[in-house]
Amino acid sequence: MTQHPSRDRIRDLRAELARRGLAGFLVPRADEFQGEYVPPSAARLPWLTGFTGSAGLAVILAEQAALFIDGRYTLQAAAEIDTALIAPRHSTAEPLADWLAHHLKPGERLGYDPWLHSTDEIARHRLAVEKLGAKLEALAGNPLDAVWADRPAPPAAPIRVHSMAYAGESAADKRTRLAQELAQDGVDAAVIAAPDAVAWLLNIRGGDVEHSPLPLSFALLRADATVDLYVDRRKMNEDVTVHLGNAVAVHEPAALGPDLDALGAARKCVLIDPNASSWLMQRLEAAGARIKRGSDPCALPRAIKNATEIAGSRAAHRRDGVAMTRFLAWLDREAQGGRVDEIAASDRLEAYRRENEHFRGLSFSTISGAGANGAIVHYRSGAKTNRKLEAGTLYLVDSGAQYLDATTDITRTVAIGAPSAEMKDRFTRVLKGHIALATCRYPVGTSGSQLDALARHALWQAGLDFDHGTGHGVGSYLSVHEGPHRISKLPSTVALRPGMIVSNEPGYYKTGAFGIRIENLVIVVEAPPIPGGERPMLAFETLSRCPIDRRCIDLGLLNAQEIAWLDAYHASVLADLGGQLDDTTRDWLVRATRPLAPA
Amino acid sequence: MTQHPSRDRIRDLRAELARRGLAGFLVPRADEFQGEYVPPSAARLPWLTGFTGSAGLAVILAEQAALFIDGRYTLQAAAEIDTALIAPRHSTAEPLADWLAHHLKPGERLGYDPWLHSTDEIARHRLAVEKLGAKLEALAGNPLDAVWADRPAPPAAPIRVHSMAYAGESAADKRTRLAQELAQDGVDAAVIAAPDAVAWLLNIRGGDVEHSPLPLSFALLRADATVDLYVDRRKMNEDVTVHLGNAVAVHEPAALGPDLDALGAARKCVLIDPNASSWLMQRLEAAGARIKRGSDPCALPRAIKNATEIAGSRAAHRRDGVAMTRFLAWLDREAQGGRVDEIAASDRLEAYRRENEHFRGLSFSTISGAGANGAIVHYRSGAKTNRKLEAGTLYLVDSGAQYLDATTDITRTVAIGAPSAEMKDRFTRVLKGHIALATCRYPVGTSGSQLDALARHALWQAGLDFDHGTGHGVGSYLSVHEGPHRISKLPSTVALRPGMIVSNEPGYYKTGAFGIRIENLVIVVEAPPIPGGERPMLAFETLSRCPIDRRCIDLGLLNAQEIAWLDAYHASVLADLGGQLDDTTRDWLVRATRPLAPA
Repeated sequence: MTQHPSRDRIRDLRAELARRGLAGFLVPRADEFQGEYVPPSAARLPWLTGFTGSAGLAVILAEQAALFIDGRYTLQAAAEIDTALIAPRHSTAEPLADWLAHHLKPGERLGYDPWLHSTDEIARHRLAVEKLGAKLEALAGNPLDAVWADRPAPPAAPIRVHSMAYAGESAADKRTRLAQELAQDGVDAAVIAAPDAVAWLLNIRGGDVEHSPLPLSFALLRADATVDLYVDRRKMNEDVTVHLGNAVAVHEPAALGPDLDALGAARKCVLIDPNASSWLMQRLEAAGARIKRGSDPCALPRAIKNATEIAGSRAAHRRDGVAMTRFLAWLDREAQGGRVDEIAASDRLEAYRRENEHFRGLSFSTISGAGANGAIVHYRSGAKTNRKLEAGTLYLVDSGAQYLDATTDITRTVAIGAPSAEMKDRFTRVLKGHIALATCRYPVGTSGSQLDALARHALWQAGLDFDHGTGHGVGSYLSVHEGPHRISKLPSTVALRPGMIVSNEPGYYKTGAFGIRIENLVIVVEAPPIPGGERPMLAFETLSRCPIDRRCIDLGLLNAQEIAWLDAYHASVLADLGGQLDDTTRDWLVRATRPLAPA
Repeated sequence: MTQHPSRDRIRDLRAELARRGLAGFLVPRADEFQGEYVPPSAARLPWLTGFTGSAGLAVILAEQAALFIDGRYTLQAAAEIDTALIAPRHSTAEPLADWLAHHLKPGERLGYDPWLHSTDEIARHRLAVEKLGAKLEALAGNPLDAVWADRPAPPAAPIRVHSMAYAGESAADKRTRLAQELAQDGVDAAVIAAPDAVAWLLNIRGGDVEHSPLPLSFALLRADATVDLYVDRRKMNEDVTVHLGNAVAVHEPAALGPDLDALGAARKCVLIDPNASSWLMQRLEAAGARIKRGSDPCALPRAIKNATEIAGSRAAHRRDGVAMTRFLAWLDREAQGGRVDEIAASDRLEAYRRENEHFRGLSFSTISGAGANGAIVHYRSGAKTNRKLEAGTLYLVDSGAQYLDATTDITRTVAIGAPSAEMKDRFTRVLKGHIALATCRYPVGTSGSQLDALARHALWQAGLDFDHGTGHGVGSYLSVHEGPHRISKLPSTVALRPGMIVSNEPGYYKTGAFGIRIENLVIVVEAPPIPGGERPMLAFETLSRCPIDRRCIDLGLLNAQEIAWLDAYHASVLADLGGQLDDTTRDWLVRATRPLAPA
């Protein structure tokens, strides 16, 4: 049995901690940009522990170590880490504070790298550590980096201009309107700490991380509408320099600290998001800046897509729908005989997408789950887990692409052979929730959390539920998960606004058996007026174009309005895609979209 | 034309402010107990301005004065105040901060009585005032009280013991379990600043304000389970002294300040709700106490009714249902000929309730709204507004009672003559929302804000909505509006828990035409298990017993499940009440509760 690589790495880290007189060190999954994707150069948590999930926090003490993960990753963590070295802990059932209470002693120093944790996160950890009489200490250099000999170089993918044809609003206009808001609020400068916010503000894209076309960077937006951009100059080129113009000064990342110091020395009022790296807030505080805590000023305007972005999304969804339809038609021909496995399926789907105009990559790793694997919400097929699509099972495929004109994200659940009565019951309840959202009118001012129950009601009535959000915002050739709006059980005060794109993705998961999710992207629109209507109402328009598997539906559970919605949706899918398909695929789509009930 | 009494009073107040060098003074509606009802001795806002609504804030400056009210009170304020003296302002559309920005100058002092505003409220006002370079100043004596010559004496209604037969848990047990929680949280004492919390904790009731059986009082609950009660000793009697026992020390209200000082001097950790009077927090801060801000520790346990309280509520709702049924039967006999007006109707309903065992008064002023008056959400009939119930209109009656064993609150909307198609459409949509809540199963952990949309969905689909909450908590022979839970558009993180009573009261209001509200009280229960159900679910059981007017229903808008719910509800009402009615009323109830659809 080979030794887990964690063993030597944790030993080296502990030696480094001992040299510094530290009792322990926090190793989070995040990098300094606090985003969803982390480049290999910042993949500290997987390097140290072996754990590759998208959320987790390791605590390394001299004698003990633990990895805090949520319920999604219980099985994966146990498979990836050496549990003799590191104890896996459920982050809510067995929280960090309780573990520290057993293992951290009064007076001891627990270190952290202030770049890698948000201000809000550190405030929570501080409470737990100081309650024990111990000390939570921001370190000047990361002790893990000191022992990470073969650390990869940071990425330096070239920045590209995101043209007006896709962005729809010039960077100068964005800078100006946001700067006006800052000035009105008495703010001198805002720290733009999220790379997708920088990319949106300056109409630039990049390729530093998987799946999101981001140039990793920070920026300062000043109330005079100028911007300082802090980015590795190797990513810059003449096109981008010309595009950015005189109002945007480009600096190496190391210049950010002194510039924050200067804001502080001049007693400027600086807006910063408490979800940003705590290093930034700490530097501003130490420099004496007047700090205003608030959301990134790009977040809301970025979420409200303009007419060009909306037209781009509609066009991209038609192309994406063609790829999905070709895939589903192929699947129906090939999979029923048990000849297709999860990886072959996702490869085929990716191949169809690659043929699309403006395709720039997948927007996330395709979730291609056959049978019981479909019940794993964040499943990723691998050589060991790869399953054949077999008769009498459901196949769940959650996928999306980055196109120059939009980002897509869609989930379909398909019957392989004949679905059971239970599968049809659950599928239809998920579909009822999907339709309830798709058809809902709601007053101006409504948040996604107010609508969430509509997507769950049919499941609740059967004693069922699902353990993920119902919808997330989606960027425009940017992050596939984008705030500030969402549809979720979690309280939210962010009202849905016309132009916001959000996913509509209720699901149901039976562990060890099957998973169901039906996901379309929808866009918030003003609801068309109706006779007798008194108030301005909003509604969702469905963007995704792809049939929903009729074979999984228990027609007895749908009412007339629900049937009418699905028939109308299918008719629009056929109308939009039919002309772009080969004969075989079109014939398949005609069958897949025929009305549920005879007219 | 007689002069408005405000004129002299504001003149006198301004003279007093000038003597103190104050630019202005805030006059809120609240008293030091921050409750819904204010005794005449603390009715400062009505005395000064004439405005009698349940929410409002006057600002009196040397030259200007304004009254900030919400949308409910626009018409009422204009009728009650002298608008030449005081400008009525909509508190959200024309907020205080904007008005102050025009009228308050840098360096000026705006005074307030710290007893009359909550900590949270003062924090908001302070932000607005200090932004102008002015000063918000807590005053040691209320300048309005100084000029209020004929101020009534404070109430001193005798305190009564709330017996175990109704309370179900002894005060000693309540003190002990709450004190254990305080001790676990490291809290030395909690300020119990809400009189209904004091009443619940000590199993006492009183009569100092209208409609709520409250003894106005403060208390300190200490981690050793002892209580200090601060109350006018004239309200005490031998029964109560014996009931309170040795663990509860009774003091005059003036002793509270020195006791808070002592907690501070000993560096005790004191829990206090930021919704409590800001005087308390300021005194604790000045004394050096370690302050923990948090909800009143009585709020959640009080909301979760025990078995005795639940049995009491079921019994009281049967009695209340008998009164409502007698009233509605009488109304059907008398009103169709145009012989009944709003006041006669509410008097008759009160007379029926008075005949009930354990009746102790109304739980709020009956809203008896005929025709267009039904569209005024917080309508109160008066000699000037009193309308006859006329054919072709709707009559809305929202009423409730205090019984020794429960507090009730119910709204019915009744057709007088034949309702129009529009009235039936709206009534049925409100009913669909009511039924959606009444029949909903939802997972453990769900808050009322997550369910709110279910009550509005049928209205939203028609472009309609209503501008009040869908449900409020209700006390047990206590306040008819009681937290911490609610069903509302406003975000809430308070999960519904078995034993919580809440109203289910969607509505629809067409200004100048008619109003509809269908309100039952419901109690949260564990949902009975169902085949295939996987998760522990909760549900509502309806407590109120009274028919819903079948004549207002557009049957074509109800689905089979909705019809089944109403028929089953009506059958249970008939079964529970039928045996307690005279023949005529029972015959009426049989007709009123017959199934909507033939079996």
